[in-house]
Amino acid sequence: MLLRQGIRKTAQTLLRNGPRAVGAQNQLLKALSTSAGEQGDNTFKNAGAVGLAALAGVFSAGAVTLAESSDYWQPKPVSVEIRKPSQSKFYSIAADNLPPKRPDLPTIPLEQVAEHNDEGDMWYTFRGAVYDMSFFLNGHPGGAPRLLMAAGQDLEPYWDIYRQHFRGHVIQWMEKYRIGNLSPEDDEKAREFTHGDMFETDPIRHPDLLPATSKPFNGEPRIERLTESYITPNELFYTRNHLAVPDLCPEEYRLIIKGKGLKKKKIVYTLKDLKTKFKKHEVITTLQCAGNRREDLHDKEHKIFISPHWVIGAMSTAKWGGVKLRDVLEDCGWDVDALALGEKLPPGGVKHVQMEGYDQDETGYTYGGSFPVEKAFDGLGEVILAYEMNGEDLPRDHGYPVRMLIPGHVGARQVKWIHKIILSNEESKKSYQCKSYRHFAPDITFEKDLAEWPPARLDQGPIIHEQPVTSFVCNPPQNATIGAKNAREITLKGVSWSGGGRKIERVDVSIDGGKNWTAAELFKPIDQRYNHHWAWTQFYATLKLPEEIQKKLKRGEKVNLDLTSKAVDSAFNVQPEKMAPYWNPRGIAINHWYHSKVELDPSLNQGDAKRPESEFGFSNTPSGGHFDRQWGLGGWMVDKDHKNDPRKRGMDK
Amino acid sequence: MLLRQGIRKTAQTLLRNGPRAVGAQNQLLKALSTSAGEQGDNTFKNAGAVGLAALAGVFSAGAVTLAESSDYWQPKPVSVEIRKPSQSKFYSIAADNLPPKRPDLPTIPLEQVAEHNDEGDMWYTFRGAVYDMSFFLNGHPGGAPRLLMAAGQDLEPYWDIYRQHFRGHVIQWMEKYRIGNLSPEDDEKAREFTHGDMFETDPIRHPDLLPATSKPFNGEPRIERLTESYITPNELFYTRNHLAVPDLCPEEYRLIIKGKGLKKKKIVYTLKDLKTKFKKHEVITTLQCAGNRREDLHDKEHKIFISPHWVIGAMSTAKWGGVKLRDVLEDCGWDVDALALGEKLPPGGVKHVQMEGYDQDETGYTYGGSFPVEKAFDGLGEVILAYEMNGEDLPRDHGYPVRMLIPGHVGARQVKWIHKIILSNEESKKSYQCKSYRHFAPDITFEKDLAEWPPARLDQGPIIHEQPVTSFVCNPPQNATIGAKNAREITLKGVSWSGGGRKIERVDVSIDGGKNWTAAELFKPIDQRYNHHWAWTQFYATLKLPEEIQKKLKRGEKVNLDLTSKAVDSAFNVQPEKMAPYWNPRGIAINHWYHSKVELDPSLNQGDAKRPESEFGFSNTPSGGHFDRQWGLGGWMVDKDHKNDPRKRGMDK
Repeated sequence: MLLRQGIRKTAQTLLRNGPRAVGAQNQLLKALSTSAGEQGDNTFKNAGAVGLAALAGVFSAGAVTLAESSDYWQPKPVSVEIRKPSQSKFYSIAADNLPPKRPDLPTIPLEQVAEHNDEGDMWYTFRGAVYDMSFFLNGHPGGAPRLLMAAGQDLEPYWDIYRQHFRGHVIQWMEKYRIGNLSPEDDEKAREFTHGDMFETDPIRHPDLLPATSKPFNGEPRIERLTESYITPNELFYTRNHLAVPDLCPEEYRLIIKGKGLKKKKIVYTLKDLKTKFKKHEVITTLQCAGNRREDLHDKEHKIFISPHWVIGAMSTAKWGGVKLRDVLEDCGWDVDALALGEKLPPGGVKHVQMEGYDQDETGYTYGGSFPVEKAFDGLGEVILAYEMNGEDLPRDHGYPVRMLIPGHVGARQVKWIHKIILSNEESKKSYQCKSYRHFAPDITFEKDLAEWPPARLDQGPIIHEQPVTSFVCNPPQNATIGAKNAREITLKGVSWSGGGRKIERVDVSIDGGKNWTAAELFKPIDQRYNHHWAWTQFYATLKLPEEIQKKLKRGEKVNLDLTSKAVDSAFNVQPEKMAPYWNPRGIAINHWYHSKVELDPSLNQGDAKRPESEFGFSNTPSGGHFDRQWGLGGWMVDKDHKNDPRKRGMDK
Repeated sequence: MLLRQGIRKTAQTLLRNGPRAVGAQNQLLKALSTSAGEQGDNTFKNAGAVGLAALAGVFSAGAVTLAESSDYWQPKPVSVEIRKPSQSKFYSIAADNLPPKRPDLPTIPLEQVAEHNDEGDMWYTFRGAVYDMSFFLNGHPGGAPRLLMAAGQDLEPYWDIYRQHFRGHVIQWMEKYRIGNLSPEDDEKAREFTHGDMFETDPIRHPDLLPATSKPFNGEPRIERLTESYITPNELFYTRNHLAVPDLCPEEYRLIIKGKGLKKKKIVYTLKDLKTKFKKHEVITTLQCAGNRREDLHDKEHKIFISPHWVIGAMSTAKWGGVKLRDVLEDCGWDVDALALGEKLPPGGVKHVQMEGYDQDETGYTYGGSFPVEKAFDGLGEVILAYEMNGEDLPRDHGYPVRMLIPGHVGARQVKWIHKIILSNEESKKSYQCKSYRHFAPDITFEKDLAEWPPARLDQGPIIHEQPVTSFVCNPPQNATIGAKNAREITLKGVSWSGGGRKIERVDVSIDGGKNWTAAELFKPIDQRYNHHWAWTQFYATLKLPEEIQKKLKRGEKVNLDLTSKAVDSAFNVQPEKMAPYWNPRGIAINHWYHSKVELDPSLNQGDAKRPESEFGFSNTPSGGHFDRQWGLGGWMVDKDHKNDPRKRGMDK
């Protein structure tokens, strides 16, 4: 069996018979697990950056380069032991995730709720509240099939897996659609089942990946690690999964190519075919999730109803190895050279390369998307079917055995576990293509316009492929305390990138939040061609502290700095200052200035630095946007004393 | 003789012998001429937009499209008579262009000044002040040769031609380099010559082109005309000349191609060769000057020492016809197909296509520049040697008989009167390439860093090729008064564009200066391919006036609106809000929000609208930046009574 995990079958049975019928078959949810559950050391000294003396401290006497060691650009060995996620934590549901008391509403029997379980007639319960969400089928960001799967049932067992619902604003918004209450007995009964957890066979992640959601796993590296090497180590590469990770057998892997103008109706390649029939091509590229910094778009006036809520680090760089898609298409009968030279037009009017992955949700709906066909046949293009990442087989989390790699395009189209390629006149109809990654004007909101899908003017919400210019300071990281005894200057480091192969031409940095700017030193140890600058540019600057700050430090006073950066790419596009004018309800293409607020402490020696004393020890924190409640793992609050285990069970007994 | 105008010889004589020696040979400056000297009608009703009822008024009862007539996208006939520029105006030098009295400084004899006329030892006089500008040779934005040409002499006869020096800040800045005074007699004597005017044989321009400088001519169309048709009529196409317009004989025109990998050392084409040996290719593209909106970067804190100071309209669209550069290069022996398919690298490591025009300054220094070679051999590229503009021979002002057309690239590289193409490993060394169009960080200023060229860190001032996303409201134009009796909505129209072939995906518009935004309707009547969107997108929106504004109008109160727009291109880049963080001393790549401030007047009927009562009747006015003194023709004040003719001569006698 190709899919080693048995979850698909379970999910399909679940869909057919409803959850109660298969309740006994489902494995119990084993843990309210977290993938980065262990707190790290609370100091940071660029651990892992062995042999890079100049990088060891935040401060430096003179100007440093990012690459004083010639192997700087190589991924550094990951020095922290990879551990099984802790299973000893429990969580409560915070007060703003509980529906209010509504004695004005009628009490509805559980049996009656259960009858509303069809398309167009969908009721749900949660903590004693009853909702009619019939209108919401296509608006559900997690997909229509999943919403239908849970119709007529209680949401908590599902949300116990998909905890991204627990950020407060979801339950507040749903109150508008509340139609009644359950009796206390029915409420208890409603939650008496567990839902099969597709994610049980997911790989274990490195604890330096901060999960934005645990299921599916979406984790961003500890921010200061991004400037520890030019290439991000595989274990620290940001991981963006839309679904559970397939566990694929390489011998059984198949790539299927279909569509217009092919020599056969359907062409199938094995992994061995790909590795032996075509020339290997390597490309170093940065990937970034379309929604990186989504957390920064959420505040009281602007609410984001789509996950994951990345903080800052959903961007990494690797060297990928694989075969060029244009070579494979040529083998399939396409005259890619004639297309690239404009001598022919794509056969049958093909405009899009549709893709489908092996990954699928509980209902069998697979991940997918599409990209413009010109990118596939481009003569100097480097779209590859990648089977290597930094010289190793792809890790499972990054698409083992084969993924799409479309340099310069948005992360969402780099389809992992690639299974099918379809050459078509139309864009992919997958919700991941035609729904999730659209960029609407700021007056369009989820609550008013998108919850009932499609909105009036889909043409006014273009779909993202290439991403805008961006940059952010990684080190010192947000909220760090920095030893500043006799300090006269500060060194900061960061990363910068632009989509579509545009080169980073300059990065300006500021220590006063953007009042004054100066150009930083740029670092890109590899050579990439004009408009093929797929990989990021790192930057660093050693800036003199203004006299008044030096004086304050001498007097023993702490000083707060607001470090920020803005990049200029080869199209001379820039990053905007503020969020609000560029806010968009899907939370994509976010590139306003990222502020890293740090404290200089003259009571500490230079070189000493402390991460913020946060719950998880990560410096990755938003800059601008904020939730009323602090960001936590999967949106639940830590409950160290196990007092509020939502299902009143001790899971580690 | 190829160059019909005799000015080159005159200028060379001038250089050899100094101005006094050839003073008698020079023709007298015939006029303090202006090219748009006549004031037009002070009302605007989209004159020229014949048959477009929906466009006739600024207000409309319902939503309009830009193209209710099927021929909307065709250039409209230019309805205003083209007139010889008026020669009846005189100008004074404003007070801030006069050096202050400095009795503390020594009086220097004119003979002594005249001795300092060599490289490294350059003195100048102006209105009785003596300056030592020796350091400034390479820093002079108008070029080193010209500064040297005037060394040891008085500046006024030169500045009488190059009036862009008369904006106040130039003379203020020069005070730092003042070393003495002339006696009143010497001051009078110093100005007793006239300098040959290369620009005498320039073509006559349309009065709806607002000159930013007259010599060389740089003129932008009346802003509201940009949304009168999709294609800009040739007469209204913004005109950016660096030098005087060559008057070339088509039979004598030659295109010379030199460089690595060619079948011969030097290959020469006639105009007939180009038109008969190669297939004609047509492309519709928008061009924009790198410095469009430069006037918006100038205020008390930020000063721009480079011209022209465009206001807003240095952007236009035309259909160009010519031959593909890649076809010509193939004919020269380059295997452009193999290059485009990545099968070969450019011969001899060629990286740049250098260009030289026929146009030259008084010293014989020709215009030129270069662009990346990948753009030239791109399989789907459309770089052409253009000989047609909107179906006609190129107008003289636009490069007759042949110009470069590099779609998606900055205006400055669209070399007009193209004479030489050199395939090289290096960028062009022309100052127009390696000096003028660089983008420095905001802490770099002309006064501190660039006046003595080169600056410390040339690598931190990248050279522009592709331009960032932009948009601006054209109609109603800046400062218009709009009839608003019983008005409930307002219709606005504008243009939007992005460099590098990126498509405009959305334009958001606002009537309250950017507090609230909504998506506009987009209009692009032509089909262009993925990343080949060379031509602009026009936009329009009919927006409901908020209740409170409607009430005010009903009460008879005037209401001010702040119309603005921001575009999103296919790389999801956006326009920044403010100028200051993106200020750069060369004044390029300017794309912060353009504000069009208009007044709704309920005492006027809808459809009635008035242009501002300005000196020249143009609505093109800056938005943000400003000079202390109002912008005028060539920087001189109008002197209707001829009281202050700087050379105390009546020119129209």
